[in-house]
Amino acid sequence: TGCLAPHAKTHTPDLRGNQDSQRTPESSLAIDGIDQKPKRALVIRNGSCVSITMYTEETKVTIAPGVQFPAWTFDGTVPGPVLYLRQGDHVKLTLVNLDPRMAHSIDLHAAQIPPNQAFTDVPPGSSKTIKFDASTPGVFVYHCESAPMALHIAQGMYGAIIVTPRGGMPPNYVIVQSEFYKPLDINAVFKGTPTYVVFNGEANKYVDHPLIAKVNQPISVAFVNAGPNDFSAFHVVGAIMRDVQESGDPRNNSYGVQTCTVAPGDGALIHLLFTAPGEYSFVSHAMNQMEEGATGEFVVHQ
Amino acid sequence: TGCLAPHAKTHTPDLRGNQDSQRTPESSLAIDGIDQKPKRALVIRNGSCVSITMYTEETKVTIAPGVQFPAWTFDGTVPGPVLYLRQGDHVKLTLVNLDPRMAHSIDLHAAQIPPNQAFTDVPPGSSKTIKFDASTPGVFVYHCESAPMALHIAQGMYGAIIVTPRGGMPPNYVIVQSEFYKPLDINAVFKGTPTYVVFNGEANKYVDHPLIAKVNQPISVAFVNAGPNDFSAFHVVGAIMRDVQESGDPRNNSYGVQTCTVAPGDGALIHLLFTAPGEYSFVSHAMNQMEEGATGEFVVHQ
Amino acid sequence: TGCLAPHAKTHTPDLRGNQDSQRTPESSLAIDGIDQKPKRALVIRNGSCVSITMYTEETKVTIAPGVQFPAWTFDGTVPGPVLYLRQGDHVKLTLVNLDPRMAHSIDLHAAQIPPNQAFTDVPPGSSKTIKFDASTPGVFVYHCESAPMALHIAQGMYGAIIVTPRGGMPPNYVIVQSEFYKPLDINAVFKGTPTYVVFNGEANKYVDHPLIAKVNQPISVAFVNAGPNDFSAFHVVGAIMRDVQESGDPRNNSYGVQTCTVAPGDGALIHLLFTAPGEYSFVSHAMNQMEEGATGEFVVHQ
Ligand SMILES: [Cu+2]
Ligand SMILES: [Cu+2]
Ligand SMILES: [Cu+2]
Ligand SMILES: [Cu+2]
Ligand SMILES: [Cu+2]
Ligand SMILES: [Cu+2]
Ligand code: NA
Ligand code: NA
Ligand code: NA
Ligand code: NA
Ligand code: NA
Ligand code: NA
Ligand SMILES: [Zn+2]
Ligand SMILES: [Zn+2]
Ligand SMILES: [Zn+2]
Ligand SMILES: [Zn+2]
Ligand SMILES: [Zn+2]
Ligand SMILES: [Zn+2]
Ligand SMILES: [Zn+2]
Ligand SMILES: [Zn+2]
Ligand SMILES: [Zn+2]
Repeated sequence: TGCLAPHAKTHTPDLRGNQDSQRTPESSLAIDGIDQKPKRALVIRNGSCVSITMYTEETKVTIAPGVQFPAWTFDGTVPGPVLYLRQGDHVKLTLVNLDPRMAHSIDLHAAQIPPNQAFTDVPPGSSKTIKFDASTPGVFVYHCESAPMALHIAQGMYGAIIVTPRGGMPPNYVIVQSEFYKPLDINAVFKGTPTYVVFNGEANKYVDHPLIAKVNQPISVAFVNAGPNDFSAFHVVGAIMRDVQESGDPRNNSYGVQTCTVAPGDGALIHLLFTAPGEYSFVSHAMNQMEEGATGEFVVHQ
Repeated sequence: TGCLAPHAKTHTPDLRGNQDSQRTPESSLAIDGIDQKPKRALVIRNGSCVSITMYTEETKVTIAPGVQFPAWTFDGTVPGPVLYLRQGDHVKLTLVNLDPRMAHSIDLHAAQIPPNQAFTDVPPGSSKTIKFDASTPGVFVYHCESAPMALHIAQGMYGAIIVTPRGGMPPNYVIVQSEFYKPLDINAVFKGTPTYVVFNGEANKYVDHPLIAKVNQPISVAFVNAGPNDFSAFHVVGAIMRDVQESGDPRNNSYGVQTCTVAPGDGALIHLLFTAPGEYSFVSHAMNQMEEGATGEFVVHQ
Repeated sequence: TGCLAPHAKTHTPDLRGNQDSQRTPESSLAIDGIDQKPKRALVIRNGSCVSITMYTEETKVTIAPGVQFPAWTFDGTVPGPVLYLRQGDHVKLTLVNLDPRMAHSIDLHAAQIPPNQAFTDVPPGSSKTIKFDASTPGVFVYHCESAPMALHIAQGMYGAIIVTPRGGMPPNYVIVQSEFYKPLDINAVFKGTPTYVVFNGEANKYVDHPLIAKVNQPISVAFVNAGPNDFSAFHVVGAIMRDVQESGDPRNNSYGVQTCTVAPGDGALIHLLFTAPGEYSFVSHAMNQMEEGATGEFVVHQ
């Protein structure tokens, strides 16, 4: 790839407006004797050469007001950190599995590489490095690929990876939809009986702490559906999406979209423009998902 | 908006071919002492200034042959009246809540306005007026937004609002898909166990009373999925859709479509051309939805 | 159509790379005294005139390792044979119902003809001939249309019909997704509780016997979702789809797609290019579907 070993120069990731990446780690509570202090992803950029270190670990997280969940995580949060790349980046990613009990792995939808070599299990206490080029721009899911994958995702092992097209800008907001089930209950996943459906890891999170926008200033939202099971019907109340790029690819355009279908394991880039101040909810318009927590709010200021 | 107070000149709404808007109100049966005589939406057009009055009320409606349902309604029908607008219209909409027991509201996907001001609860016996411009053409859902929204929708509070693009024509037919659950049973909505899935409010409605088309005459169908929960797989048996506009926006085009995915809270404009006389069923190709009533028929004449 | 009676000249169907059409019939086991020896579709092509004979029958098929299912079939297999046509073909299709007990029928999404004449029941022991022109290119579903249709599909009566556009080539692979339920249990279909979700008729079929591709050689996959109920989220692990044509129509293009939503009763044409050798799983990214068998593998050679 023409990339040397990681340089001394350290960059923090681009985190324009993504609240989730900025939240502080949840307080640690012991479950089965395991609850790790979250380590944060380390991202080193040198030109188009990017070196990322991520950690898999077990951590309690808050999934609804007052509700703790014994999660399997990337970097101690659910969803894991947003990974911001630029089209053409040469990426070296090291996954450190801090979990003393179980193997984990990472499957990045932005990476076009042989999964049988790249996305394989990292044993407890081990690490593994993969390399890929971020050749296709988009709004992608990453997730743990270890068996049973339905459970690793249901337990919280997913996040968004954004590849900004050449000349483009990262999105203003990243929203990851996912379902929580009874902890460790793979049959609940099979039956499709979630207890919560959430945006960025917590039911109704952005109702109390809304996302911010300004009147007549366009904003972009990278929307990712991590599942594990349900299709999303993403909708912004009081707004019509100016355009949507399926999978976040700039070659795809739908215009004047009221509601956006996003499959589990899929993403989209959404452009909004609010012309009046106010409070605009965003939901999955599948009402059972909304009532289970898939709702939030934009507050639009003058 | 440059609109004066409503003028004396009264227009009936454009109702080209929409059978649902022409049906007579269901016979009234008392439930809990409440079953109101449906009032019909009043639409006054003066150039591009449109004044609409709608009524929310409780009314028994027929949802399958011989099956009555104690509905919460817009204007005494499920779905509520189709609202026909033209791109650029300045709209003043008054919602009169005739329900003596409970608040209702209206959220129109065609309106880009602050929901915290516009789509709020109208108390029992009160009314409220909102204004918006129909700036984006499309095939949109409207629905009650009062909590719990899943229940207000499951009880019947939704309809279609069509914004015809400049120079365009209203659709020949409007089909609204929705699910009915055990009355007033929000848990049935959460569990996703509908008793009926219907087009324009009644299971198998257009099997006995088909929609009409003519050989080699193109027709357009505005399709809206009100949910509350299920994605639709709209399909016309024996036909391939010539083109489909996602969300009804003329800038979106898919061609040669066999089956159209429409999320709950979404709509599409569908263009058909039948080249031979006959009976062409239309269904949601999700078989459980079809068997629960999501089926109808076009009869095509020479 | 300008087609004469079928000529003596017999062509086998185009079967480029479609493993499913080449599999040998399952071993026959008697159920209720009925288990027929599969007859294979007979396809005779003379220029653009195509004559097809297909058979409906009851046959036991293998739907998972060691699991037999008393299927209702087209031509003794589930899915039925892939029908390969070219845009502009004049097709005469004879359906011979070998089932001594029950009526069957065929509804081909590629055919634009009156269903009340063409897709009607063929009584036990009878046959019926229909004619249609393959005027719209695409990747289509065919299925039995006899009531209760949900059960006829759940029992195995579906397949893919490919209409190659003028100047185009048939796809390299055809993958049909479908769900199996408890045999003959229509309530399981209504409840949406499949026991297996499969590609080309058997859970995890292409995990043991992968599909083959070559490095840097583009391949095309015709993907069809026969349902009966579930939407698919088709995804290839380690790959991004270069482009996808909705319904297989060459006028539709989405680019850089990570996951493709395909409704029950819908299809898509998917273009892939693997740049490194390895094993690339393909799945429905709805995890409950994947864990129930909707997984397979491409092996990519140098
Ligand atoms: Cu894991
Ligand atoms: Cu994935
Ligand atoms: Cu209401
Ligand atoms: Cu809505
Ligand atoms: Cu059949
Ligand atoms: Cu069909
Ligand atoms: Na809206
Ligand atoms: Na949409
Ligand atoms: Na059809
Ligand atoms: Na489609
Ligand atoms: Na992938
Ligand atoms: Na997609
Ligand atoms: Zn490189
Ligand atoms: Zn995973
Ligand atoms: Zn844009
Ligand atoms: Zn105005
Ligand atoms: Zn509502
Ligand atoms: Zn058209
Ligand atoms: Zn012909
Ligand atoms: Zn059928
Ligand atoms: Zn292509």
